[in-house]
Amino acid sequence: MAAVDVPVALLGYGTVGSAVDRLLRDSADDIERATGHRLRVVKALVRDPAKERAFPAAPGILTTDFTEIRDDPSIGVVAEVMGGIEPTGGYVLDLLRGGKPVVSANKQLIARRGGELFAGAAAGGVQLRFEASVCAAIPVIKVLREALVVSNVHRVLGIVNGTTNFILTEMEQGKGYAEALAEAQRLGFAEPDPTEDVTGADAAAKMAILATVAFGSRMTLADVEHEGIEGITTAHVTAAREMDMAVRLVGAATLVDGKVDVRVSPALVDRHHPLAAVEGAFNGIMLQGDAIREITLEGPGAGGIETASAVVADMVSVIGTTGTGFLQNDPVWRVLERLPAGELRSPFYLQIDVDDRAGVLAHVAERLAAHGVSVARLIQHLSDGGATLHVVTHEAPSGAVSAALADIEELPETRTKPSALRVISDRGVAGLGWS
Amino acid sequence: MAAVDVPVALLGYGTVGSAVDRLLRDSADDIERATGHRLRVVKALVRDPAKERAFPAAPGILTTDFTEIRDDPSIGVVAEVMGGIEPTGGYVLDLLRGGKPVVSANKQLIARRGGELFAGAAAGGVQLRFEASVCAAIPVIKVLREALVVSNVHRVLGIVNGTTNFILTEMEQGKGYAEALAEAQRLGFAEPDPTEDVTGADAAAKMAILATVAFGSRMTLADVEHEGIEGITTAHVTAAREMDMAVRLVGAATLVDGKVDVRVSPALVDRHHPLAAVEGAFNGIMLQGDAIREITLEGPGAGGIETASAVVADMVSVIGTTGTGFLQNDPVWRVLERLPAGELRSPFYLQIDVDDRAGVLAHVAERLAAHGVSVARLIQHLSDGGATLHVVTHEAPSGAVSAALADIEELPETRTKPSALRVISDRGVAGLGWS
Repeated sequence: MAAVDVPVALLGYGTVGSAVDRLLRDSADDIERATGHRLRVVKALVRDPAKERAFPAAPGILTTDFTEIRDDPSIGVVAEVMGGIEPTGGYVLDLLRGGKPVVSANKQLIARRGGELFAGAAAGGVQLRFEASVCAAIPVIKVLREALVVSNVHRVLGIVNGTTNFILTEMEQGKGYAEALAEAQRLGFAEPDPTEDVTGADAAAKMAILATVAFGSRMTLADVEHEGIEGITTAHVTAAREMDMAVRLVGAATLVDGKVDVRVSPALVDRHHPLAAVEGAFNGIMLQGDAIREITLEGPGAGGIETASAVVADMVSVIGTTGTGFLQNDPVWRVLERLPAGELRSPFYLQIDVDDRAGVLAHVAERLAAHGVSVARLIQHLSDGGATLHVVTHEAPSGAVSAALADIEELPETRTKPSALRVISDRGVAGLGWS
Repeated sequence: MAAVDVPVALLGYGTVGSAVDRLLRDSADDIERATGHRLRVVKALVRDPAKERAFPAAPGILTTDFTEIRDDPSIGVVAEVMGGIEPTGGYVLDLLRGGKPVVSANKQLIARRGGELFAGAAAGGVQLRFEASVCAAIPVIKVLREALVVSNVHRVLGIVNGTTNFILTEMEQGKGYAEALAEAQRLGFAEPDPTEDVTGADAAAKMAILATVAFGSRMTLADVEHEGIEGITTAHVTAAREMDMAVRLVGAATLVDGKVDVRVSPALVDRHHPLAAVEGAFNGIMLQGDAIREITLEGPGAGGIETASAVVADMVSVIGTTGTGFLQNDPVWRVLERLPAGELRSPFYLQIDVDDRAGVLAHVAERLAAHGVSVARLIQHLSDGGATLHVVTHEAPSGAVSAALADIEELPETRTKPSALRVISDRGVAGLGWS
């Protein structure tokens, strides 16, 4: 099937808008494979086209005239990435009523004026999608609306604000509230005026949207009671730890006997609860329902490229579900070679039983070094004349580790065949915030 | 818009098949709201219609004649929930080539004969969906194919076998391998012959499907190296704990310089890694990509109703994306009352500063009891003539807790205004396996 060219437009060309433009360009082939269409930004509404931009738009794209987008019948979908309530809301409404599908990353707009906007979409017979308005790249809206249609979700628990989660995680490391907040500001996780985040207001808007989608009943910001983390002290954090719990700012939307309760407040979360594992600036949402029991989604809840990724996914969903049905059928589009055996790099854990003799550690270390395997951590356990070495290596190709272990097995001091397990610790990204 | 009636059929009417039938009946209104269609099972292929069933089908539904399904032009989608490779594969191919969309829950069929089946779907111009074939209700296929289209996923890490994860979690509690396996068998998490699970073969089939979808290149079972957990000893588990890690059976699909590596083996996972938080019979999958950094999904990876939920979601996706575009636009379809303030029940953590005097604990406990709030745990910290009581209550309405705290604040021994935080510990479902 020949690709169908689909001109698209942006309202706004800031961090998110320019990232959407780049993603559409860089991933044009991926999108064509998924939908049979090529999406291409033809217009982007901005206040000042002459402004210096880190990622400039192609010539002729930027415009200050909204009607160039509204009145261009070739434009198949518009992404609203300008933020704010007005004039944004008026633009979106105009587009929807005029029959243009819109994708919005605007939490406040959806939470406050959702009723009006969806009525406009219905009048225009087009879709309004809003994945990027809640928790950036975490696809919780799609999962709630398309995967959990029959699961009677009755509770949504969410850590939906990365700033406060970063602060609380820092407090667990021993910092006081003020110090943790200052650190968050220094790293760019918190605004100079952090009110919106630390009071729970930002989380409340997100929970209003999540509750609306989960329960099918309109919730606005005014329906969400919220309390922030300003009152959380080291004493709370310490007490929580003693009881094997963690302090988290939790949004909870609950359906009880057909009545709904949506709130945001600090809570103590059991260490074995999936939400306690959400650390740093990450977000996590647990959906509880009859047929699914519980499904938890975790990931970066903010960031330009992450938000842009959700915007593009929504644009693809609009294009992919309008007329043609979603997606090419076969998930396969290329033939990849297999990585040769032994080349996959990873840190490894090694367990080596040896005689407890002088020099044995040096022999083991030499054999590892000879194959380029370096030791990150070592623990030694003694038992009846022998010792067990527990070694964690730095990243190394599995082939080198196997070869080193074969050499070590030949040592006269080695008692049994050494064993190796891969080690998985390489997030390297949690808590680093939005890039 | 008037609902469009869509007759559907099932291949198989066992645990999953009958659950699909029930879910379609119980959730007919939800599905109509999402798609504008009412899905209704009109035929189900079985070997023996007379067999006693826990959830019998309606009269006239069960048939032994495949052609009654294949040749009925009114049937809009067929769910394959019978399992096995033949005659199942032949049936599915026949349906697809004949222009009937198919949804399959059959991991082995998709992993082994995916190429042939997708070619059949292309020939028939219909969709083949397979969400339920991997990790039951966890919507990882939809997320990979529809939400992460532009994120260049280059690594998939998964705990995709609940049986082995349950065994490893039990070993962390001090059980040996044989004892943990016996416990898993007693609870129904492991088969009498556990080979498929403990050798990693089951996980390998799932990783073949996930790698295929993530990287767009066909992987079959033969492409996945796998090693099971039979060699894992208490020594591994203990050493892992000492190093603040956990032993997990991890599937890893990695794209390195355009080459792919897919494997399943036991690994040590850092305690702060999201996969270390996957406990009991649950599954978890981390997707790492350029635009999203990492997104983790966790939930029950098996079970009749959970699998049925994924099957129905796929049927809804087929129906909802064929012709009409996905989903009603507005997520709102009803008006829910708000739960009256103070009625939401939860366990609470209370922090109460009191004078360190005889009888004070009794006074506090009395006030709590007077409002029906009972104490689950209590820790007392002493400091300069005072004491801080850290109390965790059993579940109670927040109104009762507030009233009790107001009373406690009036006690002469109380030094400062007591504070309360909700406690979140109520999974109550993880590790309980498939219901």
